[in-house]
Amino acid sequence: MRKTNKKFNAAIIIIGNEILSGRTQDINVSFLSKWLNSLGVRVSEVRIIEDNEEIIIKTIKEVKNNFKYIFTTGGIGPTHDDITSKSIAKAFNLSCGYHKEAYDILKKYYEPGEFNEGRKKMAKIPDRAELIYNPSSVAPGFIVKNVFCLPGVPSILKSMVEGLKNKIIGGKKILSKTISVNTVESEIAKPLENVQNKFRDIEIGSYPFFKLGKIGVSIVMRSTDKKQIDDCFKQIVNFIQKKKIRITNRE
Amino acid sequence: MRKTNKKFNAAIIIIGNEILSGRTQDINVSFLSKWLNSLGVRVSEVRIIEDNEEIIIKTIKEVKNNFKYIFTTGGIGPTHDDITSKSIAKAFNLSCGYHKEAYDILKKYYEPGEFNEGRKKMAKIPDRAELIYNPSSVAPGFIVKNVFCLPGVPSILKSMVEGLKNKIIGGKKILSKTISVNTVESEIAKPLENVQNKFRDIEIGSYPFFKLGKIGVSIVMRSTDKKQIDDCFKQIVNFIQKKKIRITNRE
Repeated sequence: MRKTNKKFNAAIIIIGNEILSGRTQDINVSFLSKWLNSLGVRVSEVRIIEDNEEIIIKTIKEVKNNFKYIFTTGGIGPTHDDITSKSIAKAFNLSCGYHKEAYDILKKYYEPGEFNEGRKKMAKIPDRAELIYNPSSVAPGFIVKNVFCLPGVPSILKSMVEGLKNKIIGGKKILSKTISVNTVESEIAKPLENVQNKFRDIEIGSYPFFKLGKIGVSIVMRSTDKKQIDDCFKQIVNFIQKKKIRITNRE
Repeated sequence: MRKTNKKFNAAIIIIGNEILSGRTQDINVSFLSKWLNSLGVRVSEVRIIEDNEEIIIKTIKEVKNNFKYIFTTGGIGPTHDDITSKSIAKAFNLSCGYHKEAYDILKKYYEPGEFNEGRKKMAKIPDRAELIYNPSSVAPGFIVKNVFCLPGVPSILKSMVEGLKNKIIGGKKILSKTISVNTVESEIAKPLENVQNKFRDIEIGSYPFFKLGKIGVSIVMRSTDKKQIDDCFKQIVNFIQKKKIRITNRE
């Protein structure tokens, strides 16, 4: 089997009934995965779980030792259904009172009288957590050990990860190449498998698509090794051309 | 805490490196969740995992007894990276040779000479599995005990679930109501928590949004009890109006 570098992997935990119910379409997984890839970190698992303290604690305990980084999204706002902070604290046996730095940031931001109970709740962050600053709406995320807690609103999440680059130690950047061809998967299955068997460290995926009535397959190669990926790409192009299949896109 | 009916819950397992890498945006979770909701089944967990036999087997073994239904998507095509069928077979200690009915369906569909090795691979389905028919592209999915295996391509998946309705025994339909208001979450956190404390069987979620430069909050109520949800809705409208906050949408 292909090698996965456990030194540089991550899991994403989406905390949110609104995603599980289908009401809201998650777009944070795709954003975080691409961002982590660009830092040489591979997302190896995603879980979408309920806003339920017991389940959050159980999940964090299960995943925290299996991945280098854990990212959670959602549940750090001011309302009753925002229970990520206290659940993470319990998962690490930490208390979860007012975090001085977070409290000061929020107090400073709001006019006197505006710093109400809901807003104060956003300063309740696990003891000794390091803050993740929020350039859009001030309320910070936080880091406990290898767990990075971010909000669920995509635009705010995006504005916050920029400041995290120096906290993530990744491996080599994960490169990818794609060839899209005008055929069906079963026509290329055998030669593609042969190429995969020659390049065991390259992850080769085959994805059929149907766009505007046209069918095709995208063959995606992923690896940290540029030379290998280039050689693999050439061998695939080679058998595609021999089979007289049209290549519709290369990237 | 609110009650979750374990009799009528489900987990979705998305098998696919292309989702984990961020290359492809998953849309099957949202579709399957809404469809299951309409049948009175609540999706309680989603996992997105790698195309890796060991991981698929481990995940299926972990989840199969915790949920009434498990749906997998992806990995049942003709190429080398399609390893769902053999992995599910191993998770249930079944053999995974040619499934007679699947083989016959595929053989009948293709012209003589077209039924190549890749296409034959799609007939390798766990022994004794029940087929899920595929009105779009013929290659069937399958059911082993409580695990329903579907393809990853959304349009094909959609065409296949229609035939599954009579296989799913759900509870009462999960109803939802939404009120969108022109305020920020912290302004309504306290009264909303009070309403939640009165209606413990209603799941009340609060979701901030930023649309076209406008901020707001959507308050979503979910329950199987129409009377309770109507009463809860009224009490929320009541405190919103008392606070002179504008309601921008009700559905």
